[in-house]
Amino acid sequence: MSTAAKVMSKFRLAVIQLQVTGVKADNLSRARRLVKEAAGQGSRLVLLPECFNSPYGTSFFSTYAERIPGESTQVLSEAARENQVYLVGGSIPEEDDGKLYNSCTVFGPNGELILKHRKIHLFDIDIPGKIRFQESEILSPGNSLSMFDTAFCKVGVGICYDMRFAELAQLYSRKGCQLLVYPGAFNMTTGPAHWELLQRGRALDNQVYIATASPARDETASYVAWGHSAVVNPWGEVIAKAGAEEGIIYADIDLQYLAGVRQQIPITAQRRDDLYTVTSVQEGSS
Amino acid sequence: MSTAAKVMSKFRLAVIQLQVTGVKADNLSRARRLVKEAAGQGSRLVLLPECFNSPYGTSFFSTYAERIPGESTQVLSEAARENQVYLVGGSIPEEDDGKLYNSCTVFGPNGELILKHRKIHLFDIDIPGKIRFQESEILSPGNSLSMFDTAFCKVGVGICYDMRFAELAQLYSRKGCQLLVYPGAFNMTTGPAHWELLQRGRALDNQVYIATASPARDETASYVAWGHSAVVNPWGEVIAKAGAEEGIIYADIDLQYLAGVRQQIPITAQRRDDLYTVTSVQEGSS
Repeated sequence: MSTAAKVMSKFRLAVIQLQVTGVKADNLSRARRLVKEAAGQGSRLVLLPECFNSPYGTSFFSTYAERIPGESTQVLSEAARENQVYLVGGSIPEEDDGKLYNSCTVFGPNGELILKHRKIHLFDIDIPGKIRFQESEILSPGNSLSMFDTAFCKVGVGICYDMRFAELAQLYSRKGCQLLVYPGAFNMTTGPAHWELLQRGRALDNQVYIATASPARDETASYVAWGHSAVVNPWGEVIAKAGAEEGIIYADIDLQYLAGVRQQIPITAQRRDDLYTVTSVQEGSS
Repeated sequence: MSTAAKVMSKFRLAVIQLQVTGVKADNLSRARRLVKEAAGQGSRLVLLPECFNSPYGTSFFSTYAERIPGESTQVLSEAARENQVYLVGGSIPEEDDGKLYNSCTVFGPNGELILKHRKIHLFDIDIPGKIRFQESEILSPGNSLSMFDTAFCKVGVGICYDMRFAELAQLYSRKGCQLLVYPGAFNMTTGPAHWELLQRGRALDNQVYIATASPARDETASYVAWGHSAVVNPWGEVIAKAGAEEGIIYADIDLQYLAGVRQQIPITAQRRDDLYTVTSVQEGSS
């Protein structure tokens, strides 16, 4: 950003609900095209889904994994620069020093890498007769909270299962984030039950905007994503929502509105810091 | 409880959505009758609404306030003993040493007072053209978390606005509560927007049961309560829900089911205590 950049109270955000296939090159070219389309609609911050370059599944991660920087993040960097947007690059399987991570990279409008978030909470679920999935069998966890600054506001990043852990959102909010973004891929069991509820809860409890990006639903995939990417405002209302198919949704992030909500129901000022506190234990490195 | 009491994994809970009027004696006698009715249906724990003996409003608190023990808590004690239930007595305006509190008393099946919770977070809201209400102009806040043991499980108590503060529920859950009860009186603005969302969020995030008790709606009151008392299970589902009118709702609290949810989506075990923590700052006294 130039030094002339000033904080603006309103900006357009786009969420790309990408149809992810087994062909990495197709995923990358489609993502690039949709980022351009989103920017053409005035978006200043664009969000891609979890695992946007690879099918989601423990059997795929090692095959599709890349180092960072690498092929996929190079495409993201160019897409950010060409369109002068902040690009939250969903996530990709990352390989580093013999370990695999589920990692989100964020690029600034000049194409520079400004953040890397490795999924902190690995998705281990076992609902008999419905779904079993154990990321921890393959992946290693990140060990850091991840925030970045924009010309508009500070943004906190989590990946999918990270959203279930309220403390992460609470800390981001306390550290000044007004928008939290979660690339994620809930499934056909947890999606209808919890996807929207978690987003609305995080938004309302912290009086922040929440944006989520899911892959589009592919009924033929081994892991069927729920879709329904969304944006929720600080009042807890869904202000943009995708269906199951590929597409872009848009929302105007209004920081004056956010300030108004915090004034009307002043929970951020009325927290009883003398009775309880949420703290980050350490500044870990991922 | 006799020493023979053992922990049972399932019990029936009743929520009484009381029609509160300006006549205290009527409120008390109706509450007493409905507690008896709830017990007759097999309920072991009964919950009354916020401000069950008085209209809700800063102009009423001093008029209806009582010391504890006093007239209203005497009725609660007798109702608990006569029906051998745990009775969470909603709340009443309490007078103590020249100060007023919004206080919840809990009685055991022998009629003994086992807990007093004074509302920690005073309800100060100002939504232009919709509602302005400032409890802090009249009331003093409590300074303690409040839990009690039953033969079934540990229970955490908050009053209305306390529910907006996620930390309270997080601490109760970490300290072993499997049921959180919130007598509350949301209004016609915050009710439709947030009442159910907050309950479902607290239940899902902490994998606990949540029960709320509102007064029945009285369109002629100066503060019109939303009603819709509810019980939510640890999966985030509403399992019992009142309308706007007076009545009793019932739900079976199933601690085996709760354990199953925690096993299926093991967020309580997967929290990253090495990265963040929620702690109570002090053991205050109210």
